[in-house]
Amino acid sequence: MGNGFRKLMSSQNFGKARLEAFSDGVFAIVITLLVLELHVPDAHSPAELVQGLINLLPKFICFVVSFVYITIYWINHHQLFHMLKKTNRGLFWLNSLFLLCLTFIPFPTALIGSYPNERAAVIFYGFAMMACAVSFVWMKVYMFFGDPLVDPSEGKPAVVFLVAGPLLYLVAVLLTLVDVKLAIAIYVLIPIIYFFAGGIEDKR
Amino acid sequence: MGNGFRKLMSSQNFGKARLEAFSDGVFAIVITLLVLELHVPDAHSPAELVQGLINLLPKFICFVVSFVYITIYWINHHQLFHMLKKTNRGLFWLNSLFLLCLTFIPFPTALIGSYPNERAAVIFYGFAMMACAVSFVWMKVYMFFGDPLVDPSEGKPAVVFLVAGPLLYLVAVLLTLVDVKLAIAIYVLIPIIYFFAGGIEDKR
Amino acid sequence: MGNGFRKLMSSQNFGKARLEAFSDGVFAIVITLLVLELHVPDAHSPAELVQGLINLLPKFICFVVSFVYITIYWINHHQLFHMLKKTNRGLFWLNSLFLLCLTFIPFPTALIGSYPNERAAVIFYGFAMMACAVSFVWMKVYMFFGDPLVDPSEGKPAVVFLVAGPLLYLVAVLLTLVDVKLAIAIYVLIPIIYFFAGGIEDKR
Amino acid sequence: MGNGFRKLMSSQNFGKARLEAFSDGVFAIVITLLVLELHVPDAHSPAELVQGLINLLPKFICFVVSFVYITIYWINHHQLFHMLKKTNRGLFWLNSLFLLCLTFIPFPTALIGSYPNERAAVIFYGFAMMACAVSFVWMKVYMFFGDPLVDPSEGKPAVVFLVAGPLLYLVAVLLTLVDVKLAIAIYVLIPIIYFFAGGIEDKR
Repeated sequence: MGNGFRKLMSSQNFGKARLEAFSDGVFAIVITLLVLELHVPDAHSPAELVQGLINLLPKFICFVVSFVYITIYWINHHQLFHMLKKTNRGLFWLNSLFLLCLTFIPFPTALIGSYPNERAAVIFYGFAMMACAVSFVWMKVYMFFGDPLVDPSEGKPAVVFLVAGPLLYLVAVLLTLVDVKLAIAIYVLIPIIYFFAGGIEDKR
Repeated sequence: MGNGFRKLMSSQNFGKARLEAFSDGVFAIVITLLVLELHVPDAHSPAELVQGLINLLPKFICFVVSFVYITIYWINHHQLFHMLKKTNRGLFWLNSLFLLCLTFIPFPTALIGSYPNERAAVIFYGFAMMACAVSFVWMKVYMFFGDPLVDPSEGKPAVVFLVAGPLLYLVAVLLTLVDVKLAIAIYVLIPIIYFFAGGIEDKR
Repeated sequence: MGNGFRKLMSSQNFGKARLEAFSDGVFAIVITLLVLELHVPDAHSPAELVQGLINLLPKFICFVVSFVYITIYWINHHQLFHMLKKTNRGLFWLNSLFLLCLTFIPFPTALIGSYPNERAAVIFYGFAMMACAVSFVWMKVYMFFGDPLVDPSEGKPAVVFLVAGPLLYLVAVLLTLVDVKLAIAIYVLIPIIYFFAGGIEDKR
Repeated sequence: MGNGFRKLMSSQNFGKARLEAFSDGVFAIVITLLVLELHVPDAHSPAELVQGLINLLPKFICFVVSFVYITIYWINHHQLFHMLKKTNRGLFWLNSLFLLCLTFIPFPTALIGSYPNERAAVIFYGFAMMACAVSFVWMKVYMFFGDPLVDPSEGKPAVVFLVAGPLLYLVAVLLTLVDVKLAIAIYVLIPIIYFFAGGIEDKR
């Protein structure tokens, strides 16, 4: 089956423009849906309302972190598809797998925002984000290695950049065994690292 | 009336690009809205939270199955419209009928995710998915048969591929009379079959 | 002020393509959000679930009627903008007014779906739909009369087509004084009339 | 670090078209999501339903004000990007910061709609809107001053137009100390001012 499967996946040229437009649509919707997880607090006095808004602080932070994280994926996706010379069924499905993980983000974001001190919620968030990172790296590896979909002159991405994202989330998940606050600190740090690291990878 | 109706439906050339863009928008939104049916569990202890997440398992599975299913429709819709040489009012309305069924998917998905063991929910899901399949096949038949909207050199789709989807859902619905688990197994199998069958139809 | 206001509104040429794309985005989202008003029923037995689904019937009907109605607006909007030779600030704001009414549709749809026998809900729905129709006709009149934004050779829309939509909703709202069921019948009829009338206007 | 950071931010040319399309997508979704904050009232008698709808009046007003406000941002964003000759990483991130504030709008809109008489809600709304205004002005300043991203012949925006928006919200927030109704009056006035002021800035 392996060979037949490989043939199937390398078949057909999908319209890159429509694939890009569809992905962009999903990105724009997911990033905008995050706000729906912020619910107006139920309050019966001014003090209760202020307290209710203060209690939403973890949710606000999660909203911003997930927003930045999705933005970074959007920019990386944009650059990746810019390099793409041809597409095939395999790329289409790997992109779909990545979009599946991406559209899931509002749920772990709401979960960790509701239970910021619960190990189960913090671990769940880490695994969900790791799934995003792994599926994105998988797509990247598929594009550059084997029968490449990009111009060979582009060079190959350094392994350190490929494993960095998934590995950071794995470390964060393991750190929940020590203290969930350490894991959360890493979750907040990752977008910051990527924000500044963006330039490094460009210079490859 | 039949003749006047036929004339009306074959009138006018709708912009294919805008119809495609509109359909893509609906696809992107529907696939991203699925996550809104996943609600953060109400928990008062770590154990309750873990249990709450485990209880969401049927909803997670339904989320993935519906996501894959919509993705397959997107790819098929993409290929169908790629072959389209002209459009008319009839195609526009058949496409709208299909989009109506498509935008409805989050509801049966949430229903079967909430009541995975209830025959009524499993049957409802089957009929909703069958409606999608039938409306898609109807659009396909309209494009290829009668006054064709595609180049005649494209060949006509094999009847087996046209009836396969609706028929599989009919079988699943009938199997609920025996055991709902059999129906669910078929619901999960259908995207997998289409995933692998995609290549077969290409070689037609 | 009238003169200064007229000057302001006729100033500037807005990108027609981006205005069209933005409107299409709003159309696609509104039509897909309708499903979010369908909530999975709370049931504790198979019989309750079946009853819960049957109770949703008015909501399902409203979902379909609003879907068809928005689709008809989309097609009409598409044809209107196809004729557009230039745009200005006035058109932009009339289009925005129409989009405001359009994005509001999920609320009256949910309202009448929840209270199909309540006069207040039926009247509210009628006025909301009338607002859509009036804002659309206003935009049409602005485009064709005065300093026209379309090629004069296009001819002007017949007054009967301009007043038909708003008038039908006015009649429906007045009929609620007799029986709400009469009003609902007209709400269901309107998309059907437009579906068949589409061809008549084309032949103008 | 300052210098390295400046170099990083000025690096790379992002596709303006895709950035514009992505922003438009977010605009279209946010403006359409506002309606989801309008919930059908729970009523057990006709009188209760009418009362419930009347009670929604503040929410309806907030819906319209936020809709108009987002529309004005869309038009301004459209004009700003029309002038853009080149893009860079810094612009991308400032645009993302603006989109973050924009996607947040449904929350303060729902908050002030739920608690129109509560100082905390009115202040929160003012600060959220001020964040939008500041991030938009920041992007504008970035584009026109320093290493400009627009053609120098475009002229620079007048400082009065840059500070007007944020300042008006600051005044409104301070006025909540006197009376929240004054602040709300300013919130309603701001879109009206911008609606008419649009033409003034054009003539610069």
